[in-house]
Amino acid sequence: MTVLRDEAPFYVGVDVGGTNIKVGVVSDHGNSLSYISYPTDAEKGPDHGIDTICRGIDTAVAEAGLTLEEIRAVGLATPGTMDIPAGMLLDPPNLPGWDNIPIRERVAERVKRPTTLQNDANAAAYGEYWVGAGRHVHSMVFWTLGTGIGCGIIIADMIIRGEHSHGSECGHIIIEMNGGRRCATGQYGTLEAYASATALKARCREALADGKESILRDWMAEGKELDPLLMAKAAEQGDQLANDLIMETATYMGVGTTSVLHTINPNMMLYGGAMTFGRHDTELGRRFLQRIKDEVKSRAFPIPYEKTLFDYATLGGDAGYIGSAGYARRKHPGNE
Amino acid sequence: MTVLRDEAPFYVGVDVGGTNIKVGVVSDHGNSLSYISYPTDAEKGPDHGIDTICRGIDTAVAEAGLTLEEIRAVGLATPGTMDIPAGMLLDPPNLPGWDNIPIRERVAERVKRPTTLQNDANAAAYGEYWVGAGRHVHSMVFWTLGTGIGCGIIIADMIIRGEHSHGSECGHIIIEMNGGRRCATGQYGTLEAYASATALKARCREALADGKESILRDWMAEGKELDPLLMAKAAEQGDQLANDLIMETATYMGVGTTSVLHTINPNMMLYGGAMTFGRHDTELGRRFLQRIKDEVKSRAFPIPYEKTLFDYATLGGDAGYIGSAGYARRKHPGNE
Repeated sequence: MTVLRDEAPFYVGVDVGGTNIKVGVVSDHGNSLSYISYPTDAEKGPDHGIDTICRGIDTAVAEAGLTLEEIRAVGLATPGTMDIPAGMLLDPPNLPGWDNIPIRERVAERVKRPTTLQNDANAAAYGEYWVGAGRHVHSMVFWTLGTGIGCGIIIADMIIRGEHSHGSECGHIIIEMNGGRRCATGQYGTLEAYASATALKARCREALADGKESILRDWMAEGKELDPLLMAKAAEQGDQLANDLIMETATYMGVGTTSVLHTINPNMMLYGGAMTFGRHDTELGRRFLQRIKDEVKSRAFPIPYEKTLFDYATLGGDAGYIGSAGYARRKHPGNE
Repeated sequence: MTVLRDEAPFYVGVDVGGTNIKVGVVSDHGNSLSYISYPTDAEKGPDHGIDTICRGIDTAVAEAGLTLEEIRAVGLATPGTMDIPAGMLLDPPNLPGWDNIPIRERVAERVKRPTTLQNDANAAAYGEYWVGAGRHVHSMVFWTLGTGIGCGIIIADMIIRGEHSHGSECGHIIIEMNGGRRCATGQYGTLEAYASATALKARCREALADGKESILRDWMAEGKELDPLLMAKAAEQGDQLANDLIMETATYMGVGTTSVLHTINPNMMLYGGAMTFGRHDTELGRRFLQRIKDEVKSRAFPIPYEKTLFDYATLGGDAGYIGSAGYARRKHPGNE
């Protein structure tokens, strides 16, 4: 790969997930020069994980035609719980056994570069803010819709990480205080308990158990796994139940979006992650976003509703490592 | 009043409410040198209001033993709707007829001093952050409990005013999406619809109409007006209904607090306003705050719950003008 020398300095972004570790070299302009992904194999423990991170950094830097000395800083992103200022993993449910690991120092010692740590959802938000769908806005809320509901909030280039590294946990705002549904962390009535992929599947299974008609029943009998993709396929073929449940998910997202809009009042509400139904590329994806907007319109103050941009994210799975690199750049800008 | 010359520069803070206009001179250290209050007489229109503001500024400055030339800047706070960067009132429900008034410029022309405009709830939050209960924290959410529920959020000396001057409208987050209660702005299921003084009175009237036993029925028959103060008096005399409804209000506040805690994760959650039941000075006030905390504890992530401070505000009705002066100071620091 040709290095654009006029885009120095260069950064490495690392997105550590429960499944994969993604590493990329990113220029000062936000362009990716290289990208590599390894399985996390979280169960092999943090030493193995840190080896994988460092191997990924070495490989990505070499593939970009650079040396480690030419990397201004390294940005790590991990799931919580964590202590961001201390650079520590605390007790991350998605990385079982990686408790109380000073991951920022451990990596910095190995690569001998300034190293930053940020929450993965915040890093993805920062990536979209820096060079993605939010690159022209001053403030943004980025929702990641998947197994859970992640969120990152950026205001004037500042990540709302919170005083105890629990900022922007908007999947855990309460949308129905008397609601009986619980999210994975055991909290009742949260947005995640209603609008995550996990919740969508649960609501679908309940409807099927109630005897509701749907092609999904036949497909599951054929051994297909129930997930948002399968439900989207059914909805696109005219299956009423699948369509209703997906649109209900958008309604719940509209409720949660209203609360965060009234708290932050950002320029943009952005939606990404696996459960975005093809985004602007499908009729279902377009209806999903429109349903979110319609719900916000019915509930929010008119001025901020009308002035807020609602859109899908553009960086896809790259947002995390790009944003990690961007956060490292924010903390270590320019040449040394 | 003796002027503390070593506390220069001096600022004027103006808190324009639907009922009163409060004006005070505040030193660079946050000490009040003078204070005056006039009726707003909002129905007499914005010209009369601006005259009152300017008369208040002149009087407060003279009472402080200063001249206008010695005032570094003037800070105004008003209720919304407004355009803060433009210095405009837009369509404030609490100041009927004051539509589309460039209030910042109008006052600046008269007093010939740099003038700032901020939302009243944000200004009060900034006052508590600057010299009140939040003076030792890095970030804070300040809830004003009264007829409605106001909110201001400060993070690292930055007021979250929002891109369209609708930031920190946390009274309008949704706590029960299917809830049938509406707040004054017509929104269903909002925190304000359940936890404001207006909502508390409505819930009480409904309970009395349902035939629930309470001394309040007798008191109202004697012509006493149902309001949170009367309910507090009943609760303190052992009235079960009044006590239950007040504690239920705290529960609702705990739900809303949880959502904002998960969004912002501040150092401190602070509660002020008329409906705080004597705060730390009464057993009811102490139980009210404890009930909020208990509800948050039952719903929030343990780490931020345990590390967040929950307290009552200390500046009372002075928070608005002091915070307005503080915001003017933040925009116009030091000597000219």
